[in-house]
Amino acid sequence: MPKFEKHLFVCGNQRPAGHPRGCCDPAAQANLQKLFKQKLAEHGLKGRVRANQSGCLDQCEHGPNVVVYPDAVWYGHVTESDVEEIIESHIIGGKPVERLRLADSCLNTPTCEHRKLKG
Amino acid sequence: MPKFEKHLFVCGNQRPAGHPRGCCDPAAQANLQKLFKQKLAEHGLKGRVRANQSGCLDQCEHGPNVVVYPDAVWYGHVTESDVEEIIESHIIGGKPVERLRLADSCLNTPTCEHRKLKG
Repeated sequence: MPKFEKHLFVCGNQRPAGHPRGCCDPAAQANLQKLFKQKLAEHGLKGRVRANQSGCLDQCEHGPNVVVYPDAVWYGHVTESDVEEIIESHIIGGKPVERLRLADSCLNTPTCEHRKLKG
Repeated sequence: MPKFEKHLFVCGNQRPAGHPRGCCDPAAQANLQKLFKQKLAEHGLKGRVRANQSGCLDQCEHGPNVVVYPDAVWYGHVTESDVEEIIESHIIGGKPVERLRLADSCLNTPTCEHRKLKG
């Protein structure tokens, strides 16, 4: 097993309470990343697919955010109840979960309508 | 600028001193990731290329490790003195820095000859 077939990065960033951009893991528990890791193992994908904790992915307004590489598929507002669907549909089935994808108009751009802090 | 053209993940993991696998950032200063971020900005790449802090990338014996997506190019033993070369050659020039790439026989496999802890 050389490279990971899929490599998920789950944002685990914290900002101070009340920050206008919000943040992905205010409780700093990494529960979402831990659940991805556990469920991937249950599906027998340990070593082939990795769910990594990551620092701020800079899409804070849409958090909790997850990016899947090498596909470069971005998800926002991911909850623990979405984990199984992402794994089954996207990671195993190759079909991204469209309802959770970040819109192109929101991804990585200060003109995103949801950003209160511009620039 | 929709997706990041390149997205670097710089391992910032710590393990206890003396752990047989070692770790990428024993000082927990994230100096390598900060330098990537600074140099990318100096090259005018802010917003197009991101250098993220990440949790353990599981290639600990070869750390400090960096993976560049969507290319899925893995680097090991990266030092601060390598940052400019990676940016100029790979990120800007499209040509990975071969001398720093992890060998296929080492990447993501318990049979890597450098692993003391198997499994």
